[in-house]
Amino acid sequence: MTTTATQTAILPSFIKGEWWRPETDAAVQEVRDASTGDVVARVSSEGIDLAGALEYARTVGHDSLAPLTFHQRAIILKKMALALTERKDELYEISARTGATKADSWVDIDGGIGVLFAYSSKGRREMPQSTVLIDGPLEPLSKDGSFLGRHIFTSLPGAAVQINAFNFAVWGSLEKLAPAFLAGVPSIIKPATPTGFLAEHMVRILDESGLLPEGSVQLVSGSLPGVFDLLKLGDTVAFTGSAYTADKLRRHEAFQSGGVRFTCETDSINASVLGPDATPETPEFSAFVKQLVTEMTSKAGQKCTAIRRAIVPSALAADVARAVADRIAERIVVGDPRDEGVTMGPLASLEQRDEVLSQVGKLVDAGGRVVVGTDQPQPSQGAFVSPMLLRFDDALTDALHEIEAFGPVASLLTYDSVDEAVDLVARGGGSLVTSVVSHDPEFVGALVPRIAGMNGRILLLDRDNLKTSTGHGSPLPMLMHGGPGRAGGGEELGGIIAVKHHMQRTAVQGTPELMTAVTGVWHSGASANADAEHPFRKSLAELRIGDQVRSGLREVSLDDIERFAHFTGDTFYAHMDEEAAAANPFFPGRVAHGYLLVSFAAGLFVEPAPGPVLANTGLENLKFMTPVSAGDSIRVELTAKEITPRETDDYGQVRWDARLINQNDEIVAQYDVLTMVAKTR
Amino acid sequence: MTTTATQTAILPSFIKGEWWRPETDAAVQEVRDASTGDVVARVSSEGIDLAGALEYARTVGHDSLAPLTFHQRAIILKKMALALTERKDELYEISARTGATKADSWVDIDGGIGVLFAYSSKGRREMPQSTVLIDGPLEPLSKDGSFLGRHIFTSLPGAAVQINAFNFAVWGSLEKLAPAFLAGVPSIIKPATPTGFLAEHMVRILDESGLLPEGSVQLVSGSLPGVFDLLKLGDTVAFTGSAYTADKLRRHEAFQSGGVRFTCETDSINASVLGPDATPETPEFSAFVKQLVTEMTSKAGQKCTAIRRAIVPSALAADVARAVADRIAERIVVGDPRDEGVTMGPLASLEQRDEVLSQVGKLVDAGGRVVVGTDQPQPSQGAFVSPMLLRFDDALTDALHEIEAFGPVASLLTYDSVDEAVDLVARGGGSLVTSVVSHDPEFVGALVPRIAGMNGRILLLDRDNLKTSTGHGSPLPMLMHGGPGRAGGGEELGGIIAVKHHMQRTAVQGTPELMTAVTGVWHSGASANADAEHPFRKSLAELRIGDQVRSGLREVSLDDIERFAHFTGDTFYAHMDEEAAAANPFFPGRVAHGYLLVSFAAGLFVEPAPGPVLANTGLENLKFMTPVSAGDSIRVELTAKEITPRETDDYGQVRWDARLINQNDEIVAQYDVLTMVAKTR
Repeated sequence: MTTTATQTAILPSFIKGEWWRPETDAAVQEVRDASTGDVVARVSSEGIDLAGALEYARTVGHDSLAPLTFHQRAIILKKMALALTERKDELYEISARTGATKADSWVDIDGGIGVLFAYSSKGRREMPQSTVLIDGPLEPLSKDGSFLGRHIFTSLPGAAVQINAFNFAVWGSLEKLAPAFLAGVPSIIKPATPTGFLAEHMVRILDESGLLPEGSVQLVSGSLPGVFDLLKLGDTVAFTGSAYTADKLRRHEAFQSGGVRFTCETDSINASVLGPDATPETPEFSAFVKQLVTEMTSKAGQKCTAIRRAIVPSALAADVARAVADRIAERIVVGDPRDEGVTMGPLASLEQRDEVLSQVGKLVDAGGRVVVGTDQPQPSQGAFVSPMLLRFDDALTDALHEIEAFGPVASLLTYDSVDEAVDLVARGGGSLVTSVVSHDPEFVGALVPRIAGMNGRILLLDRDNLKTSTGHGSPLPMLMHGGPGRAGGGEELGGIIAVKHHMQRTAVQGTPELMTAVTGVWHSGASANADAEHPFRKSLAELRIGDQVRSGLREVSLDDIERFAHFTGDTFYAHMDEEAAAANPFFPGRVAHGYLLVSFAAGLFVEPAPGPVLANTGLENLKFMTPVSAGDSIRVELTAKEITPRETDDYGQVRWDARLINQNDEIVAQYDVLTMVAKTR
Repeated sequence: MTTTATQTAILPSFIKGEWWRPETDAAVQEVRDASTGDVVARVSSEGIDLAGALEYARTVGHDSLAPLTFHQRAIILKKMALALTERKDELYEISARTGATKADSWVDIDGGIGVLFAYSSKGRREMPQSTVLIDGPLEPLSKDGSFLGRHIFTSLPGAAVQINAFNFAVWGSLEKLAPAFLAGVPSIIKPATPTGFLAEHMVRILDESGLLPEGSVQLVSGSLPGVFDLLKLGDTVAFTGSAYTADKLRRHEAFQSGGVRFTCETDSINASVLGPDATPETPEFSAFVKQLVTEMTSKAGQKCTAIRRAIVPSALAADVARAVADRIAERIVVGDPRDEGVTMGPLASLEQRDEVLSQVGKLVDAGGRVVVGTDQPQPSQGAFVSPMLLRFDDALTDALHEIEAFGPVASLLTYDSVDEAVDLVARGGGSLVTSVVSHDPEFVGALVPRIAGMNGRILLLDRDNLKTSTGHGSPLPMLMHGGPGRAGGGEELGGIIAVKHHMQRTAVQGTPELMTAVTGVWHSGASANADAEHPFRKSLAELRIGDQVRSGLREVSLDDIERFAHFTGDTFYAHMDEEAAAANPFFPGRVAHGYLLVSFAAGLFVEPAPGPVLANTGLENLKFMTPVSAGDSIRVELTAKEITPRETDDYGQVRWDARLINQNDEIVAQYDVLTMVAKTR
């Protein structure tokens, strides 16, 4: 355990593969326990070699991470998650010193580990066993097939600088690290100073696990003086924090003319809209109130996603205010999160407390009445305030849509029509998330497409998901986190979306042969190998893309069609009734079933004896292109297109390009066959 | 014809639904014919109501365009293309006055019209008959299926301000307009003054066609004073022009803190790399030289995509220089593009000529030797210069990677290894496009993934596509146009990629029922209607999403498996050999063929009599999830998921959610069935 050391020595950074501390006479910033006021850490990055750290990422880090396939990176993410899980108790203990309740820490620590697991899983399920990610459909650029286009993503060649907020030291670091890592881009983590001691321990566990490819993860405890001056094309900066700071940072030359990508996620004036159908006796009404109180008090409201504006039908405003007051009175106990029964901790620091009360003051001056809680500081050593709901009679008051009190504070305002609700949501100037609590599909269908443009995420809550909903305030790894305008305009998480933001999209044009060489995926028209052993006899170790089986022709007779129809029960008129089929715009007369053709195709390409091919697991993008009449013949070309060994199994997926071709060399059908194939014979 | 009027009166703008001219005493800029020096237009926007134009776009334009479906917008794009085609001669005549040869005009005018056709086709093939675009896979968020997530795109609520470059007045306007229009966002086109008279005529044709939804397209002839001060969240600016101007514009508050999206595409120091395999006797060598000369001289080199750096193996440099000189001597005749035999016109203006020669001077000062052509101005009234190739002995000379002479000018430099080639390409600081001319898959496979991160597009040219290649300099509507760093960092075109840049991505979470209400696509778990008539009996006019057929159970016998195997020839051991199948990690023993199961499924869901269902055209995302042994039973649930009437046919596509379920209610297989269904009975 290194945690006691952090209370006396200066909190170290992890750069260029080593743990580093400033000289002992460096100017330090003291960090105090949010409840007790005890000093828990001393922080300084004085004298740190940031230029060296960046270059280390771009060279050593890039060289160790970029050559790994997406699956290999994904496997490391999973192991990282397991390493953190094993030493979770240490993180929980440290987290309590930041003012976090056990529930708050769960969101941060288990939530952060969950992001690693999710990205590990997505990386293996949705990305190739490769370093190049193909994006979108193949674009034929010439009639003869010799000129194709498609988009690929490749790793950015630089470092990902990640500037995190104080409120989620673990989750915040990992939700930025995971997509960068999966993209093959080394990270430099810069936690917020007030909770950097927690992030430091997280990185220490990862380092001690021995899992990190050299240079793939670095940590700067303390500030990053002048780091933006050192950035160049290929580097990225991801910032989470206040809109004010983001605005300042974004203006740096590196982003203005240097081509460095800047993405940010800032706290915004999020909303929760109660539907007109959600009267007090409905489950939606209580779900709305419950969620509002949770969002006000969880993490003491210090969440960029917290609900700041409760937008309710005029007729329901008084009921909502009363219900919120009741629930807070019943459920919320403010205090040291280590004490029994406490459900809401202090703010992160005395400075934060003063800042929040000052913002509440502005809201009150603008016409907000405190209808729940009090805007007076709580007498204590710690940074405690009470939850507060402010009622605004004039919903159009600018201050309520613009001023954020980053604590357990929300405003209550009313609307009377869908148009008004749309307008009120939009007045936030862009939000991370808006909840719509309603069981009326018509209301939801009318409202949501009109407010979507102003939101990064929309949660639809009703009686049918109030038990399973993960809640307004919880970004999920598979859904985008970030929103337009005030919310910063960034797109974090969202599964592979965030991975792509660490890569460059490039359009590539060329022949099938060269497209195959660049992507590692066989493109129809590239050279194929049909001479050797049947590819179903080859294990993953032996199989190569382009390995092919070409069958001979098989005639499809009227008897085949009749037999198949009566066997399967598929007596659709296009197969059975010459006259009716001929009247159909697509067919010359009776035609063979598509299902018959793909079944015959399997008969033509299959190699029946036991061998490395284990199972046909699926089929994709099947298009029937030319009808087959009785007397026509079909043959099949099946070519290994993409080979995806699994990192953790002794088999992997082979995607085959399947083409059914008739006696006139017209393509009858085209599809991908998915199989599982053993790695060795 | 209004073209004669433009020579005397001030060139009008088209705003707020009307053609508008400044007062006759407005300060005007005179535009001259690039060859003859005659005044061809007088331009001014003095006194124009830009605030009114923006608000007109956001209100009238939005209300007329956003409610149309993607397909409806796509159909209008096609009609716009046809309207322009019909009056193409007028555009060609006006284009000649800009210094464009017939070939240059073809790229601009027919190229621009081609963008409209391409977006019309993509809009209908790749987007839904809806106003909401679903993005990416469904994300299950709870085990019981009551909580789902997915991403949607909705139209941005603002105006798209499009600032175009002088070199492609028609194509440049339309390549920005088409994706914005398809996204449902109204455009305000601002052409460059030197060629704005051509864009004006193009907009006039569109206006006179009567096709434009009110407020969907506006045109400002002349400058846009203060327009950025008027922008707000939801508006976008797309700029094409110099990196210098882009840098200045980008710093405006609207983009820094206003959340307005700024995207730009700037001319960059593009490269063409010759492979070591491409010795003088190869087809690749001559293709390289031919393409280089084309890119130097087409549009007199005034293309943001033109090749500025010819990067060749040391051993081949002298051969390349000689071959370029020969080809230019043979093929290139500089003169008034209206004269017979002329293959390269003047630069766009005398100012451009002086600017280009001044940049060439800097390149010469930095060590470039003019080995082809001359850097002296041509004695003439017009803005003529000769094509110039500059040889740099030191490939690392900064100037050659940084200074752009926006005319018929390229530099020749050499490399000796893949590493060096990667480094040289990267020194451009981000390019729109790099060509790689090689027939060696190994060289191409090694180079391309390493230079992709510095390029928006890469063209692979070799003997197999030299006839079909569309060329280095030609952005295509289906491929991204834009590149990192110096190239501006934007992503134009690329098919639906550019459409999405005019939309907001939002994550939506909710029940299947509400997800269905928001997207218009049925989500499994939402209410379904299995009681009424068989849905195959319903036309598109009658069918509703959620209409369902549920079959009874059908047993699958060992005899069925045997019969199917011998009928189709698919005697794969997993179906035929109990012992071998049981040894397989996926199967309990012999199992039914997947193809047999989907064939039985068709027999279970089909309604055989002639009716509105015309054909099964395909099948997507088939996953086999639970094996079926002899004695198991299966049933099917088929539900109308997405209904896509075609705008121009009397039928449309219905996507059905198909689920095969066994006697234990486990899902055996899951897929989408695609059918064509008549609009009426």
